[in-house]
Amino acid sequence: MTERSPEPTGDYTLGQIGEFGLINRVARTVPQGPAVLIGPGDDAALISASDGRVVASTDLLVEGRHFRRDWSSAYQVGRKAAAQNLADIAAMGGVCTALLVGLAAPADLPLSWAKDLSAGLADEAALVGASVAGGDTVGSETLLIAVTALGDLRGLAPVTRAGARPGDVVAYAGELGWSACGLELLLRDADGPKLAFARHRSPEPPYEQGPAAARAGATAMLDISDGLLADLGHIAEESGVAVDLDPEAFPIDDRLRETARKLGVEVLDWVLTGGEDHALAACFPADAGLPPGWSAVGRVVDRPAAQAPLVTVSGRAWQAAQGWDHFSR
Amino acid sequence: MTERSPEPTGDYTLGQIGEFGLINRVARTVPQGPAVLIGPGDDAALISASDGRVVASTDLLVEGRHFRRDWSSAYQVGRKAAAQNLADIAAMGGVCTALLVGLAAPADLPLSWAKDLSAGLADEAALVGASVAGGDTVGSETLLIAVTALGDLRGLAPVTRAGARPGDVVAYAGELGWSACGLELLLRDADGPKLAFARHRSPEPPYEQGPAAARAGATAMLDISDGLLADLGHIAEESGVAVDLDPEAFPIDDRLRETARKLGVEVLDWVLTGGEDHALAACFPADAGLPPGWSAVGRVVDRPAAQAPLVTVSGRAWQAAQGWDHFSR
Repeated sequence: MTERSPEPTGDYTLGQIGEFGLINRVARTVPQGPAVLIGPGDDAALISASDGRVVASTDLLVEGRHFRRDWSSAYQVGRKAAAQNLADIAAMGGVCTALLVGLAAPADLPLSWAKDLSAGLADEAALVGASVAGGDTVGSETLLIAVTALGDLRGLAPVTRAGARPGDVVAYAGELGWSACGLELLLRDADGPKLAFARHRSPEPPYEQGPAAARAGATAMLDISDGLLADLGHIAEESGVAVDLDPEAFPIDDRLRETARKLGVEVLDWVLTGGEDHALAACFPADAGLPPGWSAVGRVVDRPAAQAPLVTVSGRAWQAAQGWDHFSR
Repeated sequence: MTERSPEPTGDYTLGQIGEFGLINRVARTVPQGPAVLIGPGDDAALISASDGRVVASTDLLVEGRHFRRDWSSAYQVGRKAAAQNLADIAAMGGVCTALLVGLAAPADLPLSWAKDLSAGLADEAALVGASVAGGDTVGSETLLIAVTALGDLRGLAPVTRAGARPGDVVAYAGELGWSACGLELLLRDADGPKLAFARHRSPEPPYEQGPAAARAGATAMLDISDGLLADLGHIAEESGVAVDLDPEAFPIDDRLRETARKLGVEVLDWVLTGGEDHALAACFPADAGLPPGWSAVGRVVDRPAAQAPLVTVSGRAWQAAQGWDHFSR
């Protein structure tokens, strides 16, 4: 647009300020990380990829399915949207360098909501030295956030889902079950530990543990977004192996255990099948030694007969809903 | 998911096959370009960034705003979604290496629609040697496609919007006005040149002209998505200059001119303000010589007084709607 309008005061809707107003008021005010060579405002961003490769992952968050505006603030939604993408980069062994963010929003969305979302995205990205380097905004009936994370392996080999071998130790870093607990409390409108609500609204993935696991020789790794059993199933599928977990090996917080008891829930159900904590799960050679912060919880075993489950707990299938499918629930 | 189900036959909806079914049936069947080191199916893709930098751009397309299922096939929507992102990479002087694609779709979307969309994205990307290397699928009331393009400058300096200098020649490569003509024909349910309908459904940006302009010393460049006048306004803003166009300099196809006459439209309105052709506009030093395929249509001039328009036609403001704002229309 060639005309320039005076800066409005107070809160406006996106429909009032328009696309270019949003870009100028939000995108360009964000401080940029060291990897961003060209930031928002041009046809594309330019990001450093120091070792000649770039790790890239994209996720969509839809209002009513991945967040609710009455349960989470815009700032919390921003932190969560960034966190799940940063965790994907960490799960390859990388460090995020930049985010690109698409916002599809109804015209009546308050400008303040978009600004708070942007602040949440920026603060989460800043935890690893990254920033929001570009994006797009469009009008839409449905409020949706599309986040793409770019990252740098800094010379490390990528850790995929396909390298686990029988005999490897299965371990995780970060938290398990807290997000599921928070969701259950919100659904029941019940009281419980503040940590559960906080983690459901904004998980805190252990970003630094991704590169740490890669350096320690991890053979396979992923970020736990669909629940530990479902996600270890992906490693088992891709690696042509199976996994057996030891239910006694999980360090379970007393507050989580007590809340489960009060709600009549099996606490291991939250730990084994709860999604969205964005902990990391990885397999390590038996002789590798786990980096600090990782808990060994099982073993990689040989692939069983065709109909047998690929992930077992004490040798048996876990009797519960296994993970989350975005179209069926 | 650890269980494997038999391959269904016939058409299914996304709700029936689920997220993992979609990933397995669509994403993993796509052939990958040479820059893709790790493709779909892991936490993130890994893409070559040969000169240590990656160009990255993201765009959202919303049903009813950017495409209509009764006007465009899924294949055409896929080609268009890819084209507008590939054009952003070209407009920096780069070549696209990979796309990441997010699909937010109602559960009743036919699997065949998603497959055709994927084929359109893949075919357009293949024009420059790129491929769909990753993505995400989620359920949503609104059908939305989020495309992120990654690209490689191959050692060239990026061409931003900020380098135009008074005296530069303003030129464009590609087509102007055809998409606007096609949209007008569709809105009026009128007959007209096939090319107009085709270009509105799937533009054909001149991808190779981006790096060609960069090599020829272009001082500023962008892809024309909001209309030539509006987009040159961005260059004028960012470069601290103004632009004056010569209306006689535009090579206008006789079929376009004739269709405009029949509809009672000023053909230059389509050419100067029509969006979505994804031609490239650039400024070149007066002594640089334009690469083949570029048409000189104006000059960069000194920045005028504060209230004067930044982009003029024969020294005067163009009297028409200038461009497209995604929230106001």
